Amino acid sequence: MRSCVALLSDFGSRDIYVGVMKSVIASIHPQVSTIDLTHEIPPGDVRQAAFRLWQALPFLPPGAVLLAVVDPGVGSGRRAVAVECGDFACVGPDNGIFTFVLEGRRDARAVEITHLKARGRSSTFHGRDIFAPAAGLLASGVDAASLGPAVAHPLAIPWPRLSFSEKSLRGEALYADRFGNMVTSVGVLSRDGDTLRLEPWVPGCAPLELPASRLRIRAGAGPELPLVHTFAEVPKGAALAYIGSDRLLEIGVNLGSAADTLKLSSGMDITISWS
Amino acid sequence: MRSCVALLSDFGSRDIYVGVMKSVIASIHPQVSTIDLTHEIPPGDVRQAAFRLWQALPFLPPGAVLLAVVDPGVGSGRRAVAVECGDFACVGPDNGIFTFVLEGRRDARAVEITHLKARGRSSTFHGRDIFAPAAGLLASGVDAASLGPAVAHPLAIPWPRLSFSEKSLRGEALYADRFGNMVTSVGVLSRDGDTLRLEPWVPGCAPLELPASRLRIRAGAGPELPLVHTFAEVPKGAALAYIGSDRLLEIGVNLGSAADTLKLSSGMDITISWS
Amino acid sequence: MRSCVALLSDFGSRDIYVGVMKSVIASIHPQVSTIDLTHEIPPGDVRQAAFRLWQALPFLPPGAVLLAVVDPGVGSGRRAVAVECGDFACVGPDNGIFTFVLEGRRDARAVEITHLKARGRSSTFHGRDIFAPAAGLLASGVDAASLGPAVAHPLAIPWPRLSFSEKSLRGEALYADRFGNMVTSVGVLSRDGDTLRLEPWVPGCAPLELPASRLRIRAGAGPELPLVHTFAEVPKGAALAYIGSDRLLEIGVNLGSAADTLKLSSGMDITISWS
Repeated sequence: MRSCVALLSDFGSRDIYVGVMKSVIASIHPQVSTIDLTHEIPPGDVRQAAFRLWQALPFLPPGAVLLAVVDPGVGSGRRAVAVECGDFACVGPDNGIFTFVLEGRRDARAVEITHLKARGRSSTFHGRDIFAPAAGLLASGVDAASLGPAVAHPLAIPWPRLSFSEKSLRGEALYADRFGNMVTSVGVLSRDGDTLRLEPWVPGCAPLELPASRLRIRAGAGPELPLVHTFAEVPKGAALAYIGSDRLLEIGVNLGSAADTLKLSSGMDITISWS
Repeated sequence: MRSCVALLSDFGSRDIYVGVMKSVIASIHPQVSTIDLTHEIPPGDVRQAAFRLWQALPFLPPGAVLLAVVDPGVGSGRRAVAVECGDFACVGPDNGIFTFVLEGRRDARAVEITHLKARGRSSTFHGRDIFAPAAGLLASGVDAASLGPAVAHPLAIPWPRLSFSEKSLRGEALYADRFGNMVTSVGVLSRDGDTLRLEPWVPGCAPLELPASRLRIRAGAGPELPLVHTFAEVPKGAALAYIGSDRLLEIGVNLGSAADTLKLSSGMDITISWS
Repeated sequence: MRSCVALLSDFGSRDIYVGVMKSVIASIHPQVSTIDLTHEIPPGDVRQAAFRLWQALPFLPPGAVLLAVVDPGVGSGRRAVAVECGDFACVGPDNGIFTFVLEGRRDARAVEITHLKARGRSSTFHGRDIFAPAAGLLASGVDAASLGPAVAHPLAIPWPRLSFSEKSLRGEALYADRFGNMVTSVGVLSRDGDTLRLEPWVPGCAPLELPASRLRIRAGAGPELPLVHTFAEVPKGAALAYIGSDRLLEIGVNLGSAADTLKLSSGMDITISWS
């Protein structure tokens, strides 16, 4: 038996979609607990969903089932998949949503979910009719292999941009959080004195050591941003760059919204240069 | 002991009303699990609440207690009721909120909740002071009869409109979901080739078989809508009609919002004609 | 072992911050249940958070851990604290957030959380890296004393305003709830016939008995408000004052929003005079 089902979707909170998925899970496995990661993924934004799952993964209880439903292709031919991978499992549409959590995991075994007999299966709410039942079954100890035939490679989507030249690197803005802080693809970072170490989380990049005090950091054509440890190092209302809680570079404004103040948007270039 | 308490209200998420109700339930029955259906019912919209409960009911775990608090008459003379009905129970204001889930249920036994001794009962938050304690007690195995005297007929509210003439039928738009899809009162539908079968969920209507390919479907005075199986059958941005996940007719726009694009609103006429 | 963890924050619902905190708690103590009080505290509003905790406290299950994260000073020098107090415990930043729940509690024992060994502790998400682990440990039965050294006095913030003169009193508007009802600092009230009894919840005020029918109640320079028992006593759209569910004076509009109709805002003077 698995410990919990962690849910992520673009279903929002004004409809009963999430509650109905939980009802289906509880009907199959009454003792399982559920954790909502978020249900406010922008509708159809598979890439942000994939990124959020990557953020959450290191903190999930061992044995968790990730139930992720951002599914603009529902009702079309896209497959439904379940994946067992080390001490977690994933259930969702095969549209790339698990790309980042499965990166480099040679122990991942994926199946197409074909053997479920849902009553009155709809063509618009596979979250209720396919994914929640599959998650409930996995949580109750059923083996993924019983849900359908093996799939060699779940679909993968492009990674966030991160590229390097001799004296600069370029990433992209990913999304702004509730506080207006913009998370970027530049990372994974750690700092030791003046040495900023970058171990790219995006495949195909080599590690790098950078001189923290000599970096020029910019979002789009915006002003140069100081790299600080904490917001309190700059005056109220001033912009800054810092290593966020996922060890990616983030852009903030002390006691304000960087997204609003600096007019940041997803996909915008983030450049760092040094000399 | 009952399996879970499923909650629905118009309390939203910015106040602590829902959390306090759950605290009261957990104080009475610490082991019970709770499922949030939604707390974003438009304030005071008993009819939408009643409809949402009808949607959720088939998927609830056996033994669930439905705790529903949309209660514009709180503090006035309206009764508080608890209903036991087959393998579920309901607790809430006697304002018609359970009309649709109790339709045709001859096994429903309702009581007025009068025997609860809440500390410092307020006249504005019966969710905390009456309904949550009653739900916690029912969940812990207490019989509804111990909560107060029997009630012959809980209040009923009007059903959504659905009417028929020789070569047409007319329903109404109910509400738009997060994605802008408009759910209508036309149903319950199932399709087999070109035969669209309608088994009315609204009392007093007879079943009907319609020629799917010859239907003319309109919302208000809007354009004719094609009846499709999945969104992907029409171009991006195009409007369509389809059988939704509750087997009611829904109106959508592929990768867009039908509510915005077609200026749909609740109560608008939905007409289907054939020849 | 403690019964549950009750969470309150300003993290909102569009990010995964809350879900990650719950994942951390479940990793430490898989059996514990969690209750969301609210995560929609306005960003950085420690005072509203402190008030919401005071509202929730009487209804929490015995043994609850209050995990409260509204933390504009994260990453600065402010301490992290855990407090054991009678049958509840608190975990959060030492910024005054527990002022109201700890008022007059001589049995409160506070520690600074210094002994946690979080992997990769960030300087921006102590909710995940310090507070959630501490809450999970307390919930699993660990003694607060093992988390760090004793703290004599957690930081306290100013109480809401409430002052008296011979024939009047003056409080302040605190916040509007989802329905537009404005909660004020005037309380704690109870009514017996024409006698309105006020047992101030704000320290340093003496109890008072007031003539309910001869009170003149105003918000700012607005119109005089009738003191009623229930909304239904005034016409639709009319303004009123009433004893709210926390026994504080509230200002409402029958089937409308007092905040909008009367242009009420937090901090506005609430005056009551009599003769």
